[in-house]
Amino acid sequence: MNTGRAGQAGRRGERELLARLRRELARQTIQPAAAVPFGDDMAALDPADPRLLWTTDMLMDGVDFRSAEHGWFDVGWKCMAVNLSDCAAMAARPVGALCAVALSNALTMDDALRLLQGLRECGEQYGCPLVGGDTNSWDQPTVIAVTVAGRIDPGTPPVLRSGARPGDWVYVTGPVGGSILGRHLHPCPRVREALEISRTLAPAAMIDISDGLAIDLSRVCEESGCGADLDATRLDAAVHEDAHRLASQTGRTAREHALEDGEDFELIVVLRAPPPDADRKRFGLLPLGRMVAEAGLFLRVADGSRAPLIPRGWEHFC
Amino acid sequence: MNTGRAGQAGRRGERELLARLRRELARQTIQPAAAVPFGDDMAALDPADPRLLWTTDMLMDGVDFRSAEHGWFDVGWKCMAVNLSDCAAMAARPVGALCAVALSNALTMDDALRLLQGLRECGEQYGCPLVGGDTNSWDQPTVIAVTVAGRIDPGTPPVLRSGARPGDWVYVTGPVGGSILGRHLHPCPRVREALEISRTLAPAAMIDISDGLAIDLSRVCEESGCGADLDATRLDAAVHEDAHRLASQTGRTAREHALEDGEDFELIVVLRAPPPDADRKRFGLLPLGRMVAEAGLFLRVADGSRAPLIPRGWEHFC
Repeated sequence: MNTGRAGQAGRRGERELLARLRRELARQTIQPAAAVPFGDDMAALDPADPRLLWTTDMLMDGVDFRSAEHGWFDVGWKCMAVNLSDCAAMAARPVGALCAVALSNALTMDDALRLLQGLRECGEQYGCPLVGGDTNSWDQPTVIAVTVAGRIDPGTPPVLRSGARPGDWVYVTGPVGGSILGRHLHPCPRVREALEISRTLAPAAMIDISDGLAIDLSRVCEESGCGADLDATRLDAAVHEDAHRLASQTGRTAREHALEDGEDFELIVVLRAPPPDADRKRFGLLPLGRMVAEAGLFLRVADGSRAPLIPRGWEHFC
Repeated sequence: MNTGRAGQAGRRGERELLARLRRELARQTIQPAAAVPFGDDMAALDPADPRLLWTTDMLMDGVDFRSAEHGWFDVGWKCMAVNLSDCAAMAARPVGALCAVALSNALTMDDALRLLQGLRECGEQYGCPLVGGDTNSWDQPTVIAVTVAGRIDPGTPPVLRSGARPGDWVYVTGPVGGSILGRHLHPCPRVREALEISRTLAPAAMIDISDGLAIDLSRVCEESGCGADLDATRLDAAVHEDAHRLASQTGRTAREHALEDGEDFELIVVLRAPPPDADRKRFGLLPLGRMVAEAGLFLRVADGSRAPLIPRGWEHFC
């Protein structure tokens, strides 16, 4: 939620408009509950029930998926999964979902049913039934907006972006980069892992990787008022094999793909102390580095030197 | 929620697709709480909290509004208002809203801020803060999906579409028809009235008039397993002056406009007995007729004769 996508275009004016709108939305918004700050992955739904959170994400044909290439089942799955990934980021247990669609008139009945099936099956996989929606059609490309509510388990706080402190340890729940080679079509949000990690390790902060490891970690840094030192050797050990394959096609490095590719939907997990080995293995946690007092992202290489890490496409996110 | 719009086109294939999808959604859906049946104006959000409901509505430029003619503030207002009208229909007190948008790249910053302002001001007017969202942009027409949660007040049940019985009395909260002459741009959902009516008169059924008095009353009939006899004289007394003005332009009758025009956002209120005069006046309730055992809508004229009422554009809604 609230991260938005500027599409393929990524024009500067467009990015500025989106950033300004998000600032205005944050400024003008009456916060119903102080438990969750504006702009985290989910929002508090109801002051009477601070454990209940919700999120919405809209996906557009030609921007977030390409119906000419992707099957409608996968599109539906993805639309549900990106919302469930927001639940994972806050360690919220999914409760239910609504879906509003504007279907292109070019869709066949089978296309539409497959879309619905993808939405439904992904939701069921994560205990999140689709309980209603709004179905429309038009002559333009298909747009799908899913809203998911989730509940924080009793005894655990919601895990925010803003809880990291200098000295904390940064992990990722799995290797990242190169998801565009296929994984991005069928994301498996880390909902169950997040609930277990929250219960077992009481993380200081979490975020899901939707826009890229570097950008999403930057968001944790900004919200937490600190920075992060990534260890180059450890980072290289967290590069997905798809990032290596992609690098051989793009001429960029696998590390760049790991830092900058979006739609991995792994979680960045910030812990006050390294977890016990058994937990680290059980959750597939890969260490990346430490949080530091200095704002920004930095890469520390084997000789101990340290350079600012400015990912391509980086912008100040609000 | 769940009524959908087939746009200006209203093509048969398109309507069939939407109807089929709604049936599939209803069939495949796991109902989290029995309190509210699938396909009512709102859905139950969480089995743990059966008083909490939610709804979503998506509005598309060129279908539900025309950005070339309508101001963006009004568009924002309307997008929020149609969701709040669903709250009114179930006598739910709005709690908060999320908004996901795909903004056309043709929008200026001022346009986008006015849209946000309209959403926000309408929400505030009805005690429904905008607490988060998802902001995107693309090269296609603007799409806006608002999700609203609402809570049923303690001591009152949610008012369903399905509670009407033969012999019940049918009212509307205000004159209807001809909203396209201007009222449709700034709808005032009957949220406060609905809460008071629910508390005072314990209505058997309610629905908001989004698609037209006849179609929306048909939905109450279908869900309740009965029909309705409308009294022609009373119906004519509930025709809005805009319906008369519009009739002089369209060549149709004012009564037809009252029955068939959408976007009035008054409530149809079904009561077991006529309300006390003081309540009737206080809520602006206009009598229309009675519920009957025979399925369908009927018009009863002064001589006592009775004819089926098949509104133009009627279809079997699921």
